[in-house]
Amino acid sequence: MSQPDIPKEQWAQVIEKDGVMTFKKIPVPTPGHDEVLVNIKYSGVCHTDLHALNNDWPLPRKTPLVGGHEGAGVVVKKGELVTNVNIGDKVGVKWLMATCFHCTFCQQALESLCPDAKLSGYTNDGTFQQYCVANAAHLARFPQHVDLAAVAPIMCAGLTVYKGLKESDTRPGQYVAIVGAGGGLGTIGLQYAHAMGLNVIAIDGGKEKGEACKKLGAGTYIDYKESKDLVADVQKATPDGLGPHGVLLLAPQEQPFQQATGYVRSHGTVVCIGLPAGAKVSMPVFDTVIRMIKVKGSYVGNREDTAEALDFFLKGMIHAPYKVVGLSEIGSIFDAMRENRVIGRYVMDMSK
Amino acid sequence: MSQPDIPKEQWAQVIEKDGVMTFKKIPVPTPGHDEVLVNIKYSGVCHTDLHALNNDWPLPRKTPLVGGHEGAGVVVKKGELVTNVNIGDKVGVKWLMATCFHCTFCQQALESLCPDAKLSGYTNDGTFQQYCVANAAHLARFPQHVDLAAVAPIMCAGLTVYKGLKESDTRPGQYVAIVGAGGGLGTIGLQYAHAMGLNVIAIDGGKEKGEACKKLGAGTYIDYKESKDLVADVQKATPDGLGPHGVLLLAPQEQPFQQATGYVRSHGTVVCIGLPAGAKVSMPVFDTVIRMIKVKGSYVGNREDTAEALDFFLKGMIHAPYKVVGLSEIGSIFDAMRENRVIGRYVMDMSK
Amino acid sequence: MSQPDIPKEQWAQVIEKDGVMTFKKIPVPTPGHDEVLVNIKYSGVCHTDLHALNNDWPLPRKTPLVGGHEGAGVVVKKGELVTNVNIGDKVGVKWLMATCFHCTFCQQALESLCPDAKLSGYTNDGTFQQYCVANAAHLARFPQHVDLAAVAPIMCAGLTVYKGLKESDTRPGQYVAIVGAGGGLGTIGLQYAHAMGLNVIAIDGGKEKGEACKKLGAGTYIDYKESKDLVADVQKATPDGLGPHGVLLLAPQEQPFQQATGYVRSHGTVVCIGLPAGAKVSMPVFDTVIRMIKVKGSYVGNREDTAEALDFFLKGMIHAPYKVVGLSEIGSIFDAMRENRVIGRYVMDMSK
Amino acid sequence: MSQPDIPKEQWAQVIEKDGVMTFKKIPVPTPGHDEVLVNIKYSGVCHTDLHALNNDWPLPRKTPLVGGHEGAGVVVKKGELVTNVNIGDKVGVKWLMATCFHCTFCQQALESLCPDAKLSGYTNDGTFQQYCVANAAHLARFPQHVDLAAVAPIMCAGLTVYKGLKESDTRPGQYVAIVGAGGGLGTIGLQYAHAMGLNVIAIDGGKEKGEACKKLGAGTYIDYKESKDLVADVQKATPDGLGPHGVLLLAPQEQPFQQATGYVRSHGTVVCIGLPAGAKVSMPVFDTVIRMIKVKGSYVGNREDTAEALDFFLKGMIHAPYKVVGLSEIGSIFDAMRENRVIGRYVMDMSK
Repeated sequence: MSQPDIPKEQWAQVIEKDGVMTFKKIPVPTPGHDEVLVNIKYSGVCHTDLHALNNDWPLPRKTPLVGGHEGAGVVVKKGELVTNVNIGDKVGVKWLMATCFHCTFCQQALESLCPDAKLSGYTNDGTFQQYCVANAAHLARFPQHVDLAAVAPIMCAGLTVYKGLKESDTRPGQYVAIVGAGGGLGTIGLQYAHAMGLNVIAIDGGKEKGEACKKLGAGTYIDYKESKDLVADVQKATPDGLGPHGVLLLAPQEQPFQQATGYVRSHGTVVCIGLPAGAKVSMPVFDTVIRMIKVKGSYVGNREDTAEALDFFLKGMIHAPYKVVGLSEIGSIFDAMRENRVIGRYVMDMSK
Repeated sequence: MSQPDIPKEQWAQVIEKDGVMTFKKIPVPTPGHDEVLVNIKYSGVCHTDLHALNNDWPLPRKTPLVGGHEGAGVVVKKGELVTNVNIGDKVGVKWLMATCFHCTFCQQALESLCPDAKLSGYTNDGTFQQYCVANAAHLARFPQHVDLAAVAPIMCAGLTVYKGLKESDTRPGQYVAIVGAGGGLGTIGLQYAHAMGLNVIAIDGGKEKGEACKKLGAGTYIDYKESKDLVADVQKATPDGLGPHGVLLLAPQEQPFQQATGYVRSHGTVVCIGLPAGAKVSMPVFDTVIRMIKVKGSYVGNREDTAEALDFFLKGMIHAPYKVVGLSEIGSIFDAMRENRVIGRYVMDMSK
Repeated sequence: MSQPDIPKEQWAQVIEKDGVMTFKKIPVPTPGHDEVLVNIKYSGVCHTDLHALNNDWPLPRKTPLVGGHEGAGVVVKKGELVTNVNIGDKVGVKWLMATCFHCTFCQQALESLCPDAKLSGYTNDGTFQQYCVANAAHLARFPQHVDLAAVAPIMCAGLTVYKGLKESDTRPGQYVAIVGAGGGLGTIGLQYAHAMGLNVIAIDGGKEKGEACKKLGAGTYIDYKESKDLVADVQKATPDGLGPHGVLLLAPQEQPFQQATGYVRSHGTVVCIGLPAGAKVSMPVFDTVIRMIKVKGSYVGNREDTAEALDFFLKGMIHAPYKVVGLSEIGSIFDAMRENRVIGRYVMDMSK
Repeated sequence: MSQPDIPKEQWAQVIEKDGVMTFKKIPVPTPGHDEVLVNIKYSGVCHTDLHALNNDWPLPRKTPLVGGHEGAGVVVKKGELVTNVNIGDKVGVKWLMATCFHCTFCQQALESLCPDAKLSGYTNDGTFQQYCVANAAHLARFPQHVDLAAVAPIMCAGLTVYKGLKESDTRPGQYVAIVGAGGGLGTIGLQYAHAMGLNVIAIDGGKEKGEACKKLGAGTYIDYKESKDLVADVQKATPDGLGPHGVLLLAPQEQPFQQATGYVRSHGTVVCIGLPAGAKVSMPVFDTVIRMIKVKGSYVGNREDTAEALDFFLKGMIHAPYKVVGLSEIGSIFDAMRENRVIGRYVMDMSK
C-alpha cells in the first residue's frame, strides 16, 4: 500500500473552555513508537461527550480538548513498534485509547481499571477530529468491507451494553430486565441480549418505546409510567414469578436503582451501567442478605469484549439505528441531547 | 446399638408471647419418615435468637416457639426413610433444619433461598429443648470423638462467616477486611480467613479487641474509634495501597456499609452478612461503575459449606471461645447481649 | 382431581436374561412415602437401553429388568411426603430416577455422581412399562399442554447434550464443534447450541447428514469421510483459524477423541459424552500442556439442567425428530439400532 | 540514580550447535524502545535448559543461543517507552520474556498462549549471560531487599507450580495429590499448596523424599515404589476415601498420567505440568464420562500469577532449597541432571 498523503492541518471540534466547543483548524498530531495515526471517517456522539463538554464529572479532564470516543477510520501512519495493523487497515478508536499494560489491572485484562488509562476525548484528544492518534494495541480491528458509519456506535454503546450483559452472570435461556430499553444504549442492549439467547423484559416509558422494544425482540414491555406496581409486574413477566436473573440499569435516573433490587430474582445480579449525576444505589441490608442479591458496576469493557461485541455486529445481528450529520453540526446534536430529543444514535461524518 | 430410652417429656425454653421466654416441661416430639429425633446436648446462643424472642424481623415467626439453631447432640430415633445417620450418631442441627429439596433453589444447592425452608428456632421448634426433630438430610454429621460443646457454634456462627469468605471471591494470598473482627462472628471469621490463606485487615473498636485480633492472626488492626481516615487507613494496610480484595461486613451498624465501598479494591467484593435492623447499603453509582465494585449478601450456607466449615474445625484450626451455662439460665445470656457484654459465644448445657 | 383407577396388572417389556426382552403382564408397583406412580404414556428409546439389554457396560445391572429412562406420563398416585406434584400432573421420568440427596455430590447439586443413584431402566425398573415408580423430587414437571410424545426424548437425549454444551465452557458468539452432529443426540445438540447463541461446526459422515445439519442451523458441515485433513478443516471453519472454543464428542467411535484435542482452540474444552465400548481418550502431554487444553466428561445432568433443557423445548426452539411405535414393537427398534438404521429418535406409545 | 557503567562485552554460556555449550565473551545487547537491559546477578537452571541444549522438543529453537529463563538482576538501561521500572530496580526475567500484547490470548491475559511469545533462552537469548534484554512489561518487579539468588527459582519453578495449583480448581481445605512431590518442582509446589490452605498427598519414591515431603507440610506420603495399589492408597489418604480434589503431575514419566485419572475424586481435576518426552495422557472414556473427570494442561503462568507467586515468597512462606555455583560451571549441573543427582535447584552466580 502506498503511503497516504497526510495534511499538516485538519478540522476539529475543540473545547477551549467548559461548555464551549469551537469548530476550527488544528495541527495533525504525530504517533509515537507504539501508536498509529487514524484518519477518522465517522464518529458517534455519546452522552459522555456532553459531560466532557460541561466538565461536570468527578474525574479530571484535559483542556483544551478534542472530544469523541466512538471513532471509525483508516490507519494512515504507524510507529515502528506497531505490528498488529498496517497502513490502510480499517480500525476503531474507543474510550480506552491506551492503558499501561503493566499495572495489576492490565495484567488481569481489566484494563478499564488501569489508573493510567488514556481516555479518548477526555484525558486525551479524541475522535472529533479528522486525524487522531491512538495506541495500536487498543484499536478495534475491522474487516475491509465494514460500514464505518454503522460500526462507530459499537465502539462505545455496543461494547458497554455487551459487557454489561456478560457481567450480569446470566446464561442463555434466562431472563434479563433492561431498564431504559428504549433508549440509545437500551435498543442496542436488547439486540445483544437476544443474540445471546436471553429473554428480555424491557422497561421504559411510553407506547412508542414499547413498540420499538417489541420489534427488537423483547418478550415483555413494561411501561413504568403506567405500571401500578413495577416490582410485581416485572416478577410476573418471568414464568415462575421469581423475577429476572439479571438486571441492566441503563437509565439516567436514580429511582430504578432502588426498584431493581426489589424485583431481581434471589441470587440474581443487578448491573449498574448508566451514570446519573450524583446518584446513589441504596438497598435494604436485610433483603440483600436473606435473598443473596448481587449488585455490581460495569464500565465499558476490555479488548476481548470489544472483539466479541464486534463479532455480533459483523454477523448482522446488531442494528443500532443512527443518523449521520456533519462534524460541523455537533452543536445541534448536543441541543437535541439536552432536550432529550435523541432517538437512536448520532454519527458524524468527519468530511463535512 | 440398643434403642435409647426416650422420655415423654423434656425441659425447654419456650417463647409463649413476644419478648417472654419460659423454662418449662413440654412433650418430646416424634420424627416423620425423613426425620430424626436428636437428643440435644449443647446449643449455642446467637443474636438471631434475640430477634426471634423480640419478633422484630420482617419474617413471620411461629408462636409458641422453642428457639435455638446451633444444636449438637445424639440421634435417638429415626424415620424409616433415613439412611444417612444411625441411632447413636453425633450430629448438628442448623438454622436450615429442612428445605423442600425440589424448588429451583434447592436444585442448585442454594437451599438457603428455599421458600419453604424450615428454620430451626424460628418457623419450627429449635434446639433450646432436650429433644429436637430435624430433617435427616440437613444434619451436620460429626465423628464420635467431637467435643459437642465446642462444635455447637460452628453450626451457625462458623458456617456463616466461612460462607461469607467463600462469597468474597478472594483467593489465598489476597487481602480481606473484616468489619467487626473482634466480635463473636468476627473472631471466628478471622480464624477461617487465616486457615484459608488470606491476609486479614481486622477492623473494630478498642485496644482489647485489637489485641485479640492480632493474637488470632490478623496482619493489621484498625481501630475505627481512633482512625481519622478509615478509608485511607484500610487501603494503606495493603502492600500496593489499592485496598483489600474482599470485605466482610459483620458489624451491626449502618455506617461501615458505606465506608466499605470506599476502601475495597477496584473490582473487589463487599459481602454483607450482619443484619442491623432497618439498615441500608448505599453507594455512589459513579464510583460503583467506574471502579467495577461488587456488593452481595451472604446468608448462612448450604450443606456443603457446613461440611467444609466443620472440616476446618475438626482439623483444630478454629477455636471459637465460648462459655457454658445451663439451659435454665438463658435469661442472663440475653441480658448480656442486650447490654453488649458478650465476649465470644455462649453455649448452653441442656442437662442443666 | 378424582383418584384415577389404577389396575393391578400392566404390560411391560422385561429383560429376564441378558439379550432377551419379553413383552408380558407384570404387577403394577406401589410408590413409597417420597415417591409417585406415573402412568407412562410415551417413552423414548436410547442406545443405553441396548447396552442394558446386552448387559455389556462395566456397571452392575438389575435382573429381571424393565428398561427405559425417557418417560413422559401422568401422576396417578403419590406418597404422603410428596408435595411438589399432584395427581394428574404431567411429568417426566429420567435416567436419574432417585438419588440420596445427602452425599457430598448431592449436596453440591452434582447428583449424577451420587453413589446411591437409582438409574431408571438399569438399577431399577424403568419406563418400558405402563406404570412406573419414581422419586418425586427427581421428576421433570411439565405444563398441562405439553406434547408427551415430543417431550420424551428431552428427558435423556436433550438433557445430555444441553448439559454437555454447558460443560463446554463456551459463551454465546463462540464456536463449538459437534462430532456426530447428524445423529440422534447430534441433531438435538445442534438445535440447543443454536438456541444458546453458539456457532456450530457440524462433523459427521455423508451428504444427507450434512443437509440435515445445515437445515438445523450449522454454520459449517465437515464430512469426515471426505476431509483429507480434518484438523485443518475444522480450524479453518473458525474466522481466525484458531479452532473451535469447545468440542462435543457424541460419536460412538474412538478416533474422534484423538482428533478433537488436535483442532480445539488453545485453552479450549473437549467434552466427552458418547460412550464407545472400551474406548480411550489419548492425547500428547506436550501439546496438552503447551496449549492448555481441557478434556472433561459430562454425564446426563442435574435437575436444574433438566428444567433448563425443558424450557428451551417448551419455547419451541427444539424439534427432536421422532417416530412413534407401540411398546410391543421394541424389538424392531433394537434391530434398527444394531443395523445403524435409526434416523432421529424412536418414541414408544405405551398403550399399544 | 547515576547511570551505571555498561561494558561492551560480557561472559555468556552459548549453545553454538546442538548439545554443545561454550563459555565465552559476547557483545552486550541493546534494549529497544519498550525493553530494558538487565544485569543478571543470578540465574536458576531448569530441566528445560537441558531440552534447549539438546534441541529435542517439538518447538523451533534459535541458534546460536544463550539459554536460561530464571534470571534475577538489576535494570541498567531502559528504552524511552518504559515507565514501569527505573535504573537500579531489582527485577526478574521469565520464560515469557515478551509477548505481543494484542493477540486474542494476550487480550485475555493468557499470554502463555501468545503465538508470537519470545521465550527466554529458547527463541531469544536468555539469562545465562551477564546482560540480558527483556520486555519491560513482562519483568517481575522485586523490592530492593530481595535475595536475588533465592528468588531466581521462583521465576520459573515457583510460577509453574503455583499456576498449576490455581488451575487445579481446588479450594482451601481440599486435598491435592502432588506426583513427584520430592523433586525440584515438587518441593516448591508442596510449600505453595500448604500456604494456600490445601492438604497435600505427596507421591514420590524412596524414604528420603518421604521425609523431605513430610517436613515441608505433606499430610501423607505415598511411596510409589512400595505401594501395592497406588490408586487405593491415594484414595484412602482422603478422610472420605473419595480421592483428592486435584492432582498435579510434575513427574517426568508417563505412568502417573494414567493412574491419576483412577484416583482423582469424581468431578476432580488432573493438571498436567511435567513434559516427559513423547508421553501421552490416556484415560478410559467410560470412567471419564461417568465420573465427570477433568484433565487439563497448565503452562508457566501469566504476569498476575508471577506477582502472586512472588508475594508468597516475599512473605517467607516458600523456601526453595538451592545451591549456588559459578556460571562457568554449568556443565557440571547438566551432568548432575543427566544422572538424576539434582536435589533442589541449582542457581548460578553470574560473576563467577
